[in-house]
Amino acid sequence: MENDTVFGKIIRGEIPATKVYEDEKFLAFLDIDPVTKGHTLLIPKEKYTWIHDVPDDLLAESFIKAKEIILAMEKGIPCDYVQVGVVGKDVPHFHIHLIPRNLSEEVMQTSRPHTPYQDKEESLSFAEKIKSGFK
Amino acid sequence: MENDTVFGKIIRGEIPATKVYEDEKFLAFLDIDPVTKGHTLLIPKEKYTWIHDVPDDLLAESFIKAKEIILAMEKGIPCDYVQVGVVGKDVPHFHIHLIPRNLSEEVMQTSRPHTPYQDKEESLSFAEKIKSGFK
Repeated sequence: MENDTVFGKIIRGEIPATKVYEDEKFLAFLDIDPVTKGHTLLIPKEKYTWIHDVPDDLLAESFIKAKEIILAMEKGIPCDYVQVGVVGKDVPHFHIHLIPRNLSEEVMQTSRPHTPYQDKEESLSFAEKIKSGFK
Repeated sequence: MENDTVFGKIIRGEIPATKVYEDEKFLAFLDIDPVTKGHTLLIPKEKYTWIHDVPDDLLAESFIKAKEIILAMEKGIPCDYVQVGVVGKDVPHFHIHLIPRNLSEEVMQTSRPHTPYQDKEESLSFAEKIKSGFK
């Protein structure tokens, strides 16, 4: 089945995304409408709509991969911790939100709109920070 | 190390909780300050503070168990889908928020306060609904 969601288009390179991680099974890229700067989406390239649709093996791998990216974000951005969220109502392709957080933040607000990047340069700099965390 | 968080006390039965699932490794119970009614917390009994502290095997098992509970919630409550969240700032024992949602909801608000149960009976009825979803 053709994956005609925005994530399918990103996977196929039909629309651009600021990638922070990619391998054969997974892709992680910056959310274009970030809750906080560095807000990353992790998706398996294989499309499942809801978390309850994802086979156990792939689900397990997805969260182990999420942990790897979390550690890179905490080191690279840096941030104190990373909030994890799965909703699935917006784009019907299972994805994990990874939102950089600091302990000094008082309010935990996840409804949009949020914290836009000033420009393309700023979003690229956050992607570079996260990628540096893998090293 | 003694687990002196509220979750440690719940695991040891020192303070009450409305349980929806329990096995040797995991415990799931209703959040006492629910975002929506039926809001459940899943914890591994072994204490890790942050998601990045949880060993890969247990992390994988935790999300496979979360999926099992999500399916029970969707069937038992019922609800259209279940929002998944991990923050970790509030109680320093890794836990997964499972929040029943319906597609008709417009706003996705996760900051507190939320939707209190009218009384103990109502919270027990939600626990029973979720438990019925496992059957």
